[in-house]
Order: sequence, then C-alpha cells, then structure tokens
Amino acid sequence: MIGFDEIRKIAQVTPSKILLLVMDGIGGLPHPDTGKTELETANTPNLDRLASKGICGMAYTVSPGITPGSAPGHMSLFGYEPTMYQFGRGIVEALGLDIEVGPGDVVVRGNFCTVDDDGVITDRRAGRIPTEVCKEQCAILNKGVAVSGTQVQFFAGKDHRFVMRLRGDGLSHHVGDTDPQHEGMHPLAPEALDPSATRTAEIAADIVAQARTLLKDRHPANMFLLRGFSEHPDYPSINDIYGLTPACIAPYPMYRGVSRVVGMDILPAGETLEDEVAALKKNYDKYDYFFMHYKKTDAKGEDGDFDAKVQAIEDYDRVLPSILELNPDVVIVTGDHSTPAGLVGHSWHTVPVILSAKYCRRDEVTAYGESACLKGGLGVFAAVELMPLAMANALKLNKFGA
Amino acid sequence: MIGFDEIRKIAQVTPSKILLLVMDGIGGLPHPDTGKTELETANTPNLDRLASKGICGMAYTVSPGITPGSAPGHMSLFGYEPTMYQFGRGIVEALGLDIEVGPGDVVVRGNFCTVDDDGVITDRRAGRIPTEVCKEQCAILNKGVAVSGTQVQFFAGKDHRFVMRLRGDGLSHHVGDTDPQHEGMHPLAPEALDPSATRTAEIAADIVAQARTLLKDRHPANMFLLRGFSEHPDYPSINDIYGLTPACIAPYPMYRGVSRVVGMDILPAGETLEDEVAALKKNYDKYDYFFMHYKKTDAKGEDGDFDAKVQAIEDYDRVLPSILELNPDVVIVTGDHSTPAGLVGHSWHTVPVILSAKYCRRDEVTAYGESACLKGGLGVFAAVELMPLAMANALKLNKFGA
Repeated sequence: MIGFDEIRKIAQVTPSKILLLVMDGIGGLPHPDTGKTELETANTPNLDRLASKGICGMAYTVSPGITPGSAPGHMSLFGYEPTMYQFGRGIVEALGLDIEVGPGDVVVRGNFCTVDDDGVITDRRAGRIPTEVCKEQCAILNKGVAVSGTQVQFFAGKDHRFVMRLRGDGLSHHVGDTDPQHEGMHPLAPEALDPSATRTAEIAADIVAQARTLLKDRHPANMFLLRGFSEHPDYPSINDIYGLTPACIAPYPMYRGVSRVVGMDILPAGETLEDEVAALKKNYDKYDYFFMHYKKTDAKGEDGDFDAKVQAIEDYDRVLPSILELNPDVVIVTGDHSTPAGLVGHSWHTVPVILSAKYCRRDEVTAYGESACLKGGLGVFAAVELMPLAMANALKLNKFGA
Repeated sequence: MIGFDEIRKIAQVTPSKILLLVMDGIGGLPHPDTGKTELETANTPNLDRLASKGICGMAYTVSPGITPGSAPGHMSLFGYEPTMYQFGRGIVEALGLDIEVGPGDVVVRGNFCTVDDDGVITDRRAGRIPTEVCKEQCAILNKGVAVSGTQVQFFAGKDHRFVMRLRGDGLSHHVGDTDPQHEGMHPLAPEALDPSATRTAEIAADIVAQARTLLKDRHPANMFLLRGFSEHPDYPSINDIYGLTPACIAPYPMYRGVSRVVGMDILPAGETLEDEVAALKKNYDKYDYFFMHYKKTDAKGEDGDFDAKVQAIEDYDRVLPSILELNPDVVIVTGDHSTPAGLVGHSWHTVPVILSAKYCRRDEVTAYGESACLKGGLGVFAAVELMPLAMANALKLNKFGA
C-alpha cells in the first residue's frame, strides 16, 4: 500500500467535498427464517439508489477474521492502517469527553464498581449508576485525592464511566489495568509494564488506596476499576497527510475522540440524526471532508434485536435524501465493522460499501446489502484504501511517479 | 506477498514462453450516451475469444485510488512493488534514449522553455519546438558548457525534451527541480536537498547560468527547466529474480527505459504494431519472456478522443491473431493504468486483465471489458501478483515450502 509520504506528495487541495457516512455496525448475518441480513431485510430505496449510481464492494476494516473495536474500525475508514495507529481506551474516552490531554499527561478509563466487604468485585459497573451519581463520585475524588507532585483529576462520563487524568513530570502510560474483567475477583494492583512506569504505577496504587477510603460508604459505587492507561498519540493529521479540512459530526464521545486524534474539527452534533444533518448543512461551506456517525445500527445489533436494527436502517434511509441534496462530490456509505444481531456484538464480517461520485466506474449493483455489494467493482478490499479512493474520486490526487 | 528471495528459490528455467501484452491506458469510463467504456464499445472478437479461454480480473497497478505514472504502472506489471521500486523521471528518460548511465552518473530530464526579458517563464515547453531544433540546442550546449572536473552532456529527446548527464566524482541526485511547474514564475535555483548534494547543486547552478547566455538568442527556446535529478537505480533484474531471459518490444523511449532498469534486452521495435509483431517473431526463439507495448490506446485517451481510442483497440484486436499464432504458453493482456477519454489523462480506475494459459482455471468471462472482467476468477487484485501468476502458469515455479 502507498504510504503517507507518497500521499503527501500527490495530494492537492480543491473545492470538491467528500462525505463519509458511517452506519456503525451496519454489516449483519442472515435471519434464520428469511436468509436475509438486517440490511437486506430493511426497505432502503434511497441507499439502493445510491448503490446503483456508485461503485460497491465489501471491506474489512482491520483484516480478515479480525473483529474491530470502534477505534481501529474508524481509523481504517480515515485512511490509517489500524494496526500501525493504535491507541488506548483511556485516550479515546478522554478526547470524547473534551478533556484536554497534553504532552506527557496520562489518562485512563475508569468504571465505578461494587465490591463486597472483602474487596471482591460483585458488579463491574456498580449497577450502571446514573450519570448524576457519577458526577458526585468524581467530585468526592477530586476533593479528596492528593498526590505530591502530580495533579490528579477525575472527569465523569456516562453512567458509571469516568476518566482519570494524571498530569506531572516523568509519567508513563505503561501501566497495567486494575480491571480483572471478571467479577468475583479482587481488583488487580496497578503494575509497571516497563521500568519507566514504576513511579506511575506507585502513584496509581496510592490513588486506588485513597479512593477505597473515600468511596467506602458510596455503595453500590464503592470502588473503581481502571483500564487503558494511555497518552496522547502523536499521529499525523488528516490535514497534514491529505490536505483536507475535516470535520466530525458524531453525537457519541468515542467517535469524537477518535476524530480529534486525526485532527478533525468537532462540530456540535446534537442528539438525533436530524440534528446531525442540520450540523452538516450549517457547516457545509467550511470544510471539504465530513465524517458523520450513526450509532443506532450498532446499538440495536449489540442488543441482539434484529427487528430494531432493521428499523434503525430504515430510519437512516429516510433521512439520506436530505444529506444527498447537498450534492457532495464523493459520498461513501459504510460501517466501521459488522454487528450482527445474531452475535449480539461486533464481528469480523466484512462491511458493505458504496462509493458514489461522478467519475467512479459504476458496477451492476443496484441494492445496498451484503450479497449485492459482493458483486461490486471494489471487490473485497481493505477499508483503509477508501481514503485514497475518496481522494481520487474527488480529483484531489495527482499522478504517482513518472 | 511473497518476496523476491522466496521467488528466487522456487523459480526454474524451462522452455515455456510468457507474453505480456500491454495496451497502455486500456481501462476507461462509460460513454454517457451508451453506458459502455471504450473497450466495451470496440468490436474485439479476438480479445473476447482470448478472455473466454483465459482467467480474467480487474487489477490496480499501484493501489486503490492511486493514478499510476507509466513507470510505476509498468514496474508493477513486471512484478516489482512500485512503491518500493521507484525512480526519477531523469533516469527513465535517459534509459529510453539509450543514454549510457553508469554508477555515480546523475541524469536529469530537461525541457527547453521560453522566458521573457526578465527571465520569467512564458512557455514551459518553448512552443514544443521540433526535434531538429532540439538537437541544434543540445549541440550548442554541448559545445559551450564547461564545468571543471565534471563531464556535462546534453542529449536531445522528442520535441522540447532533453536529458542532461553529469559524470564525475562526488555527484549526488539529491537536487531539487528548477522547473516551478507553472508559467509566470522564474525558474527555481537548483537546491541541495541533502548536504551530500551541495556541490552538485552548485554545478547545476553554474550550468544554468552558462546556458542562459548560450541560449539567449534562441527564442522561443531561450532557456531550459530541469526536473527529476536521478541516478541509476540498482534494482535486481528479472533474470536474477525469476530466471527469465526477458525482452522488450516498445517503440517509445519511456517504456524501453523502464524495461532496461529491470534488465530486459531491448529489441528494435520499429514504429507500428506490425513492426512490433515482426520483431517478436524474429526473436521468438531467443527469449522466454516478452513485454510488448502498445501506446495508441493511451495516446487517444489522453487526447480525450473516445472514438479514436475505440479505433486503436480495434486495430490491436485485428493484429492479435498474428501474435497468438506463435502459441505462447502464457499470454497476459492488460494495461499499466486506465486512461478514460472522459478524463483526458491517466486515472486510478482498475484495468481489465486476461491471463490465458493451458492450466489456468477458466471463468465465465467471455468478453474483454471492464464489467465482464469484474466477474473473472482473478477478482480485483494487485497487478504486481501477475508475474508470479504468469510464472506459475508457465510451470516455472516449484512448490513453496516443504
């Protein structure tokens, strides 16, 4: 594959616009009764029309057989080889919550949890406490926790989730999780995974000890678990590589976080798909690349609710014309991974892709679905190639080599 | 992908013959009135028959979305990953003009151009002066330019093009272009891109100053622009890697140049396609691999002339039987890239491929065209894989691994 150094040499800035429309977890598996996937079951006249006009294919966002997390799935769609450009859970959560992460800071994702009198975990999510309670918990910790020479700060997320940020000299993110990933166990002691992290692990252990005291009467949220110690990944931006001025429209923190890592401007996205379209229209003149994220397809797949996922797809299809009426030069519709309702979670299956543009070479595909897109002109391919394809179709790439 | 070290271990010399037939820029885009590409519009009974007998597919020569220059497009067809095996414009031009380039020599591509009294470029190609005038210009420079300790030589190409060769000790090709790529600007000063190139940049600046004086009364060709300072790339040869004895039949310098870099013998190709076939027949017993290049398909695409490109394809189809009557063991028909008339230049679109051989696994494709080949047994694939496929189908590759 062509590298960023080569791309930089051939990328050019033009007024043409690229739209990346991600239906999270769009790929599925056939319903046993009908033999049709969620997407094939849904009535999607607008997506089908777009598929007819475009070139289609089936993509893997990481590599065949690999079930992508949200971060690598999106990095791939943004043109970054996801095995080369990895980052920890902590940084993604922090960026998604608009927490400032500077050079040298260490951030880690936290869950409030329930422990019994012996300190054994009985609920890894503390009964999914309301966000308001989570905020109270963080306030207690921010007031009570003190470490000499290091600023420690807690930021509440949704429900039981929070982010802890350590700021000071000589910190390292090479610290192991305290979350053992199973109930019925004690939290793990924070372990230095590298000699450079010895002090950070000690600081983390000190914080855990202080928290145990501060939270002991806060049942069910009487303890916390940490995972994904991480630092800000210093990756080249989409603007640096492709010369694009990119914007992200995503209601959920995680996706804003990944977008911020690759240097996108984060637009206020609202809550609903209609809000997102309004944000797109309001900012359409200011950017030449938009990433728009739709969560419901994944959420319903993760619930194992086939019919609700079908419904989420049809909801999207109804809104699509209001997006397309902007006449973007290149539109890509795809997912960051599959989330078959039958598997109640992310899966390794390829995702269907439409790329529609004036100069794409149309194929014979006339429906947006897994079986239909398999016959498309893009073949079965690596999603990381979509960014160069989008650039090419927007006439933003010069010739490579003499 | 399997590397050259592995290929070397399993390649064997046999009497079987491989023919790589390149129709330059063969891929196209549909005509808006008919929905058919140039290739699909052309009447090509012989190519269609070959497609029926062979295995087909759609290939990208660099990677998806990348518009290949001629050099990387061909390197890929010759089995060399084009992002790993790059070379400058200067070396390609020099080799194509049969200019000897030794170790340590630096060659650079030149354009005669027109500058006004202030030295501002008014025509980057000096009104495309005739080749005869170009020869006079080079003679003037060869007589007049002198640099102590370095041999400087100018070689005329077609029209306004020439090659400058520097021969001496301590030269480096890490010198920036003097061609600013736009009119209305002064030529750039030759800049050392690496400390090792300081002296070479000074020499180039000295030559430019001398040339300004020597050419000042030669309007419209009263100055020149330099680009692509380069050295002979020391790449392994096709013979070294594959054990083949390869020959090139190409009327145009550029393609002979790339072929020479990978160690092909350059056969006198004449001017016409019939001349090329005669060269093939005359030398058929002496080689086991032939690369035969057809330029007209690309030239007509670059002219934006859909009908003329169709005609060029039909011309080729008529001559094909006289090639196939040699009964080569493996025939590949493809292009180095697409050149849709609608885009008036090279493009990123995949190229249709036929591989016909006794032991290929036939597919259901019965026509040589973009839509037809998409359904072929090779799928959508990287053209760099064609060389191992050709070797395999010629029964020239032993088993890999125990």
